[in-house]
Amino acid sequence: MKTTITKSHMVVAQNASGRNMNVPVYRLQGEQPGPTVYIQSSIHGAEVQGNVVIYQLIQALKTQVIAGEIILVPNCNPVGTNIKAGEYTLGRFDPVNGTNWNRGYFYDKNKVLAFAETVTPDEPADAIRDRFRQYWADCITDKLSSPWGLGLAQQLNLKLQQLAVKADIVLDLHNGPVSTRHIYIPEYAKEAALQFNFPHCIFIPNQFAGALDEATFCPWWTLQDCLQARFNKPYDFSVVGFTLEMGSQEVIQFSEGKVDSQSILTYLSNKGCLLGEPLKPTVMQRLGVALSDYKTLYTQWGGMVEYCAKPGDHVKKGEVLARVLNIDELDNPKGCFEVCAPCDLIPMLHFPSASVLSGTQLYKVFTRYVSLS
Amino acid sequence: MKTTITKSHMVVAQNASGRNMNVPVYRLQGEQPGPTVYIQSSIHGAEVQGNVVIYQLIQALKTQVIAGEIILVPNCNPVGTNIKAGEYTLGRFDPVNGTNWNRGYFYDKNKVLAFAETVTPDEPADAIRDRFRQYWADCITDKLSSPWGLGLAQQLNLKLQQLAVKADIVLDLHNGPVSTRHIYIPEYAKEAALQFNFPHCIFIPNQFAGALDEATFCPWWTLQDCLQARFNKPYDFSVVGFTLEMGSQEVIQFSEGKVDSQSILTYLSNKGCLLGEPLKPTVMQRLGVALSDYKTLYTQWGGMVEYCAKPGDHVKKGEVLARVLNIDELDNPKGCFEVCAPCDLIPMLHFPSASVLSGTQLYKVFTRYVSLS
Amino acid sequence: MKTTITKSHMVVAQNASGRNMNVPVYRLQGEQPGPTVYIQSSIHGAEVQGNVVIYQLIQALKTQVIAGEIILVPNCNPVGTNIKAGEYTLGRFDPVNGTNWNRGYFYDKNKVLAFAETVTPDEPADAIRDRFRQYWADCITDKLSSPWGLGLAQQLNLKLQQLAVKADIVLDLHNGPVSTRHIYIPEYAKEAALQFNFPHCIFIPNQFAGALDEATFCPWWTLQDCLQARFNKPYDFSVVGFTLEMGSQEVIQFSEGKVDSQSILTYLSNKGCLLGEPLKPTVMQRLGVALSDYKTLYTQWGGMVEYCAKPGDHVKKGEVLARVLNIDELDNPKGCFEVCAPCDLIPMLHFPSASVLSGTQLYKVFTRYVSLS
Amino acid sequence: MKTTITKSHMVVAQNASGRNMNVPVYRLQGEQPGPTVYIQSSIHGAEVQGNVVIYQLIQALKTQVIAGEIILVPNCNPVGTNIKAGEYTLGRFDPVNGTNWNRGYFYDKNKVLAFAETVTPDEPADAIRDRFRQYWADCITDKLSSPWGLGLAQQLNLKLQQLAVKADIVLDLHNGPVSTRHIYIPEYAKEAALQFNFPHCIFIPNQFAGALDEATFCPWWTLQDCLQARFNKPYDFSVVGFTLEMGSQEVIQFSEGKVDSQSILTYLSNKGCLLGEPLKPTVMQRLGVALSDYKTLYTQWGGMVEYCAKPGDHVKKGEVLARVLNIDELDNPKGCFEVCAPCDLIPMLHFPSASVLSGTQLYKVFTRYVSLS
Repeated sequence: MKTTITKSHMVVAQNASGRNMNVPVYRLQGEQPGPTVYIQSSIHGAEVQGNVVIYQLIQALKTQVIAGEIILVPNCNPVGTNIKAGEYTLGRFDPVNGTNWNRGYFYDKNKVLAFAETVTPDEPADAIRDRFRQYWADCITDKLSSPWGLGLAQQLNLKLQQLAVKADIVLDLHNGPVSTRHIYIPEYAKEAALQFNFPHCIFIPNQFAGALDEATFCPWWTLQDCLQARFNKPYDFSVVGFTLEMGSQEVIQFSEGKVDSQSILTYLSNKGCLLGEPLKPTVMQRLGVALSDYKTLYTQWGGMVEYCAKPGDHVKKGEVLARVLNIDELDNPKGCFEVCAPCDLIPMLHFPSASVLSGTQLYKVFTRYVSLS
Repeated sequence: MKTTITKSHMVVAQNASGRNMNVPVYRLQGEQPGPTVYIQSSIHGAEVQGNVVIYQLIQALKTQVIAGEIILVPNCNPVGTNIKAGEYTLGRFDPVNGTNWNRGYFYDKNKVLAFAETVTPDEPADAIRDRFRQYWADCITDKLSSPWGLGLAQQLNLKLQQLAVKADIVLDLHNGPVSTRHIYIPEYAKEAALQFNFPHCIFIPNQFAGALDEATFCPWWTLQDCLQARFNKPYDFSVVGFTLEMGSQEVIQFSEGKVDSQSILTYLSNKGCLLGEPLKPTVMQRLGVALSDYKTLYTQWGGMVEYCAKPGDHVKKGEVLARVLNIDELDNPKGCFEVCAPCDLIPMLHFPSASVLSGTQLYKVFTRYVSLS
Repeated sequence: MKTTITKSHMVVAQNASGRNMNVPVYRLQGEQPGPTVYIQSSIHGAEVQGNVVIYQLIQALKTQVIAGEIILVPNCNPVGTNIKAGEYTLGRFDPVNGTNWNRGYFYDKNKVLAFAETVTPDEPADAIRDRFRQYWADCITDKLSSPWGLGLAQQLNLKLQQLAVKADIVLDLHNGPVSTRHIYIPEYAKEAALQFNFPHCIFIPNQFAGALDEATFCPWWTLQDCLQARFNKPYDFSVVGFTLEMGSQEVIQFSEGKVDSQSILTYLSNKGCLLGEPLKPTVMQRLGVALSDYKTLYTQWGGMVEYCAKPGDHVKKGEVLARVLNIDELDNPKGCFEVCAPCDLIPMLHFPSASVLSGTQLYKVFTRYVSLS
Repeated sequence: MKTTITKSHMVVAQNASGRNMNVPVYRLQGEQPGPTVYIQSSIHGAEVQGNVVIYQLIQALKTQVIAGEIILVPNCNPVGTNIKAGEYTLGRFDPVNGTNWNRGYFYDKNKVLAFAETVTPDEPADAIRDRFRQYWADCITDKLSSPWGLGLAQQLNLKLQQLAVKADIVLDLHNGPVSTRHIYIPEYAKEAALQFNFPHCIFIPNQFAGALDEATFCPWWTLQDCLQARFNKPYDFSVVGFTLEMGSQEVIQFSEGKVDSQSILTYLSNKGCLLGEPLKPTVMQRLGVALSDYKTLYTQWGGMVEYCAKPGDHVKKGEVLARVLNIDELDNPKGCFEVCAPCDLIPMLHFPSASVLSGTQLYKVFTRYVSLS
């Protein structure tokens, strides 16, 4: 018994020539019931490695027995992938207006609260889940049909979210600029940190800033909290969303894609999506931070930078992070100065260009991290 | 007795060569006390006409007698003015990360509330105003000295706001893409609509979305409301901020700049900033809308567009707004289609390029507008 | 008897998602023999008005009787049309490497000379023409199959040229930045100046700089000269190419498109492509210059510019062309200075943005022009 | 006795705010006569490592005894360094018009020929050299003062060339996209290949394509050839120019900069610019190719690419260069295909982004290379 794979294309935009721009949608359907999984990659156009991860997932899943359904959408942003500015891809935001491609998903706390009012104390969790899922899907459809229209990024986000809203597990595959592997995990699903093979985990609260992972878990988390407060009993709808950062942008590597696909398969196996022998998470050190301890270091100066600390390095307070060249002072000691770590930290990523203006995000770093086990 | 003009330069950023980037600050000081006025232009780098307006203001004010002080900062964004992408200026957002240059000013409602707690019922309004102004300036300075630094746009905004925070009247000079004159006015200062010479006025509520006008009036408005609620008597600190949209971007015109400088002088005259003969507002039709009736029309399709309705035109429901060419259907009736007005409206601006992707802001329009008098 | 229109699509590139990018090819076939005409538009992506001209041509030609064949390729550069950088279209050059989209057509003088060697004194002109056309088409095909590949712009150009090489008349439809109508005419076909309705004509010599019009006429012109020198008798193969500049980029206008389509129809009527009543050129003043008298005025300074002289204006030596604002000197007479005409001239176009760095092409102008009749 | 270092700044452009943009010029003057050396870096704005090399040169030369003069111009293109488009630097061409920043230097063969006419058979070589240098400097000054002005890139190039024209040795420091060290050497100075520490050398003929190295040696080479032909005796004016490609763009590394500065010092020591103990070139394998065997491999397809062959690798015919992902075919064998080497080759550089359109320069490679010794 093999998995059946079907492929379709979904139109998500039209370009200035009036041509449709679409995304491929691969559906892997198991013969047994099970969770629905939604995985997309490259919502930021330069973050292409997730496409290889999906490729490797498909190769691996062809020979596996699946419970439920796995929906895969590689290259989910056909606009962002194709805006070149010089040799690189201007993939992080809409080049027309600067809108981040990953900030237009739907969430509205008031709509959750309104729904919660319709729940009765003895309505079974499954029934609530089914009703809420449909309700939320309708909200997205409503939003998409706004009479005055919507911006390009938001249209794209909502069309993807119409697929994702049906899933129990949503994985959004990203890359950092120059980056090591790290993953964003909602605090209420902390145990997932031990089920993926990511050395660095960021735990995020129930706050919505526009991204797909938040748009996935915030409604359910809010609903759970709300019902628990009303009926004084716990609810768990088991819907989760994660953002996986799997290395550096502008690069693909087939062998690393296999490593990440294995990490995802391990998680899916633990969640009952794969039948057969359970996969065991790799034994490795896993470190975690609260989102509030995941810091961005901005520069106060402009100049040319050597990034001395590499993503993943453990840097002690006072050690050199970066060395800066000042081209107007090469004949005196001010020709070069060092930027030092303000506290113990681990860089997750750094800016991908040596040339920085003042106010550049030089590093994003773990501070006050703890070991997970 | 002539006005004295002093000029200085304020560093607001450093470029990748490590060179300082600064803005010119012109100060016109009157011999009599009076309001402080702050006027800046070109925070969006392609919106350059405000620089000519400031030029014309200086020419006119040289021969006027001023009460108080007028601070003028033309070309207030030296980064945005100088990013070219093709022949045009990529001036609306930071080209590195897409951050809108006009969304990083400081506002924090909780800080207003905390301050309000320190006010006693019998503290005179003047004393409250002085204390709050200093308190707010300190908040901005605190923010600027964040230990991990701040992004470029926010650093720029806050340095400008350090100048603006001292003013009673703040004017932020902008342009639309292809645009007619319109002005954003806080609802609580509605009477200003009759003191400028703008045919189109948008009245905005006490909501902060990051722009300078909002960052100017939201703290004072909130403080007023808060004190009124606490002490059950009205407060009016007379601090106002406006965004003036004076025509199209990428263009300067000296004669039009004179018209707009006259409009501003008229307002300043009415507010007691200019001594001598009061200036009378031009007799003209003025129309107003609530911000919620100022609509954006997005496209659902991509293509090439003729903008049939011009900014300022009165368009009836069903009349043609735009005509779209579909290059793949030139041999049949689908080669061209029309976009019609969904209701009676007046376009304020339209997109500046014929080539649009789906989700483009085609027009921003007045609906349900009323005549002011 | 109506004209039959067939439509096909030709793949000219693949994007980074691996999808084909194609151009529409409309063919209007007459029942009688006659010249072959090739017309393309928008090789520079922001120059979109030619697409409307082709639309209007098709509307008009539907009801005409054609001799020969007319091939129409609107929006012939699907890459350039769709690169946005801010609200405008970055359509003039490949954003990856800066290559002008209109400089990669094929021409090789040595190949013409080699062909000329194969001609015998008594070979009829028609036979030479047929042989040379095939020879040249083969050269283009050879070039396209270079074993190490070719750059994107060149691949695009050569694929279009494979269509154009079969034509007797090639029209390449362009726009200037902010521009009035003008046309490039090869000196050896000067009489065409009176057959189109263009007020401004630039006569160009037999020099190849990469554009389609040159790539069309240079081979035939060179061949004619070469054979005439060898055999001491005139040859005329009647193959011509023109670049038509029909107003400003970033704009489409259906009514103006009708005017230009009428101008083209008039020319085609005169060349025997249209049966029925001959169309008469409009009575109007036509001015001509040699290419060497078509001058570009570059700035030595940077600043913000009001373009006082409009395209088409007749400007006397010493009159004001432009007024420049200097934002650091608004308080003194250096705050504004004027740029004056170095000689009598007519601007054809000016830079489309008020903001210019030093070395910007401010104006392109006719000098030492003459009246044609 | 120490070297004296003087620093000045040369204005090379003005930005749209009307501010001067300048380059630092460091001059190291020896007490003894000797060659004049000119070294610049970062004419392509993203190629920043040369600035570190100049930093390291200055550190080393501070303690050396120099014969002659060494002129150092780091960051010689203040425009190109500061155009950001996304996180990267759009440094290779003028963002307004696509003009490559390294193609506008002056050369005019006819001017060399005209000068050669003024030489008499018995004029000493030194006198010819001095006269020609002055003549050529005057030509550049003439060009710079063109009555209609010049484009920005050309103005910048000519101002730098005014410094370089006085030098006997000109080094232009560059980087490739993702690149290994290689150097362009004029064929007539082939022996230099053994005096630098570059593993890969490209020998170029006496052809001018606009770059600084060519603009340096083409006039002298042409003059030598011309005089030799006229007077039937050899001339050698010993003026040379090189382009050094020292690794990848967008990156600086202080330790690698020391390696390259040592390579340059070794060459200068061999040319008599440094007194004291002569420096010996590193013992290493050096490979050379003729420019015509330095090939560019363009793609025929678009897609996402893993660059399997690294710069510097020796790749046999038929071995895998790159692996391409096709996101629409992930469920079948066409999901991934390989690009193989068409012959034995060594990649010098590859494209820096995984995402490529058709017609992208995938690799530049050595073919038919030989070992030098």
